[in-house]
Amino acid sequence: MSTTVGPERPVIALLTDFGTSDPYVGMMKGVIAGICPEANVIDITHDVPSQDIRLGAFFLERAHRYFPKAAVFVAVVDPGVGTARAKIALEANGKYFVGPDNGVLSLASRRYRAVVLTRRSYFLPDASNTFHGRDVFAPVAAHLARGVSLSSFGPATGRIVELSWPKPKRTRSALVGEIVSVDRFGNLITNIEPGDWRSLRNPRLHAGDFRSSKLSKNYQSVPKGKLLLVFGGYGLLEIAAREASAAEALRLSRGANVRVAAG
Amino acid sequence: MSTTVGPERPVIALLTDFGTSDPYVGMMKGVIAGICPEANVIDITHDVPSQDIRLGAFFLERAHRYFPKAAVFVAVVDPGVGTARAKIALEANGKYFVGPDNGVLSLASRRYRAVVLTRRSYFLPDASNTFHGRDVFAPVAAHLARGVSLSSFGPATGRIVELSWPKPKRTRSALVGEIVSVDRFGNLITNIEPGDWRSLRNPRLHAGDFRSSKLSKNYQSVPKGKLLLVFGGYGLLEIAAREASAAEALRLSRGANVRVAAG
Amino acid sequence: MSTTVGPERPVIALLTDFGTSDPYVGMMKGVIAGICPEANVIDITHDVPSQDIRLGAFFLERAHRYFPKAAVFVAVVDPGVGTARAKIALEANGKYFVGPDNGVLSLASRRYRAVVLTRRSYFLPDASNTFHGRDVFAPVAAHLARGVSLSSFGPATGRIVELSWPKPKRTRSALVGEIVSVDRFGNLITNIEPGDWRSLRNPRLHAGDFRSSKLSKNYQSVPKGKLLLVFGGYGLLEIAAREASAAEALRLSRGANVRVAAG
Repeated sequence: MSTTVGPERPVIALLTDFGTSDPYVGMMKGVIAGICPEANVIDITHDVPSQDIRLGAFFLERAHRYFPKAAVFVAVVDPGVGTARAKIALEANGKYFVGPDNGVLSLASRRYRAVVLTRRSYFLPDASNTFHGRDVFAPVAAHLARGVSLSSFGPATGRIVELSWPKPKRTRSALVGEIVSVDRFGNLITNIEPGDWRSLRNPRLHAGDFRSSKLSKNYQSVPKGKLLLVFGGYGLLEIAAREASAAEALRLSRGANVRVAAG
Repeated sequence: MSTTVGPERPVIALLTDFGTSDPYVGMMKGVIAGICPEANVIDITHDVPSQDIRLGAFFLERAHRYFPKAAVFVAVVDPGVGTARAKIALEANGKYFVGPDNGVLSLASRRYRAVVLTRRSYFLPDASNTFHGRDVFAPVAAHLARGVSLSSFGPATGRIVELSWPKPKRTRSALVGEIVSVDRFGNLITNIEPGDWRSLRNPRLHAGDFRSSKLSKNYQSVPKGKLLLVFGGYGLLEIAAREASAAEALRLSRGANVRVAAG
Repeated sequence: MSTTVGPERPVIALLTDFGTSDPYVGMMKGVIAGICPEANVIDITHDVPSQDIRLGAFFLERAHRYFPKAAVFVAVVDPGVGTARAKIALEANGKYFVGPDNGVLSLASRRYRAVVLTRRSYFLPDASNTFHGRDVFAPVAAHLARGVSLSSFGPATGRIVELSWPKPKRTRSALVGEIVSVDRFGNLITNIEPGDWRSLRNPRLHAGDFRSSKLSKNYQSVPKGKLLLVFGGYGLLEIAAREASAAEALRLSRGANVRVAAG
């Protein structure tokens, strides 16, 4: 556990459910600037729906792949702040993750070396019980980014709270997936990976009133307003509508099932 | 007045009511990048309700504490842009504040050395009357961050427009406070400090239909949906609801009174 | 085509219609951080209405003026992602622009040297057909910011898709302009430039129920709630209401005509 972060300009990426209307995220960035002024602080998003650990974990899992080695991720979707839930930091695949031990870090870090954050000297003085994002996780991330080794923050732990990735369920002749996110454009993002799709002969998707066996290459391969299937920016199967919202057209939302049957 | 800012990577923190849908904040950052490319520009928030000077001042007062020494704050909530209201910069407690002289800077700067911004050579050429955030305050902040001394920007002034901090009112046996902000989670943030609370024997809060004499340590010390009292991330007494919105539960909003009576 | 970008800290400015609730913009910034860690990445806005190329082009045209020389702009409002529409980069007036060839770059770059992005070695490996912002435009911008010359990215092209700037139409004794944007404050921004206004003798604006021949210098020159005319932060004629929304008062929105008649 002696690996250290340490490019010339370390990256700290933030993901929270704090929104940006209150000064909470700004406070976190002020704390980071005081400890690691050279850090490149990047917002993944602060608009995770309030206390939605699962969606935060999903966003982190998909986004972290696009960041450079040694990036430090701070993910704070933390309804249990100040309770007995642990505060942790971990290293997985050369990247670092800091946050509450409630599963929000777990989808992005399949194999990890984790520590429990116990060394209060790395927290803000008089850390509150109500805002660990600012008082614990931001300063720990900034110290990590400066090169403090993971093991300095507290004792190793072999277990963190792990969410299960929502894999499609396989029946005899079909896959039952679900919509895991709906984006700004109204695209319905499923949990179906390219390999899932290809594992069926002549796959055909059923979702609400929509049926399709045709994979489009982009969002314009059908007439305006019509629905289509595409592997999108998440690397997952999406139901989209050309220059329109598939979510509105199908009245489907997150959590809804989609079915892919062999032809 | 010869102190200068000048860490290797100066911090400029922005707080406005411009929102982020229009390109206004981006224009300000473009201006800063041209003058002080090494600056670390941090958003506190741009979603102060339109022209709400008091809330902007409150956010700035609470947020600036978490920033490092020599940080430069630009606060632009400025309904009077282009009128006779002065443009000012000031130093308070080792930090710098730039903005309109309408009180927005005043809660964060109890003791200050202030100047009126008159040297047009530090403004954008052809500065407009309608967007001082971009044409005056951003460039002045960037020059300050580069190390230009405060006195270079114009003559000293002994007085700036000062808002009064909304202190709880003390009656014989009670405190009457108010809700000063409602955050994204629906937490009702009051103006009651820990010392106010402790100054009463067996304090008991009354707010709408809610009564409580119990301080919680976190947001989970009551059953789901129930209300609780906690000193939150602002260091102020908050009424919160576990995994729910206290604002909705109590139908209280900013400005509403809360009362703390001795038991 | 051998000019290179290359200040010590290059600027990359982003304008998209991705919103900030999904992790899409964060992914783009992660990609940039991996290629050009020293870049100063600035958000112009990510809230261009979904697929509104024209408004994106307008915002870019107005905002880019405030950025320093050699800044690299990435503009992604791209309904046609993955279709035959070209991917381009261009240099105009010492600044660089990267995005889809659908007009979004064109208002900001009247005279340009453009290339078609064909060298896949500058894209992310396995670039998708659905998210060129992350897989093509962000990495190309980062390479440009590092000093890779424009001509390295692909063959020169003499023609890009150009939008026409919506100039006011001139009739015998009047100008017919239009509202090109409505900002957060409800200000109605027209396409009328100062020279247009001055070209008429005793100009008088007609917009909905509002008539005025008086130019205000700021937003406070009329009683509270009343309407006024001012040249605003865009350098364009705006209809505003003092501490209120002109859009609501006049029930006018983007695209509506306004008329300026000689007196």
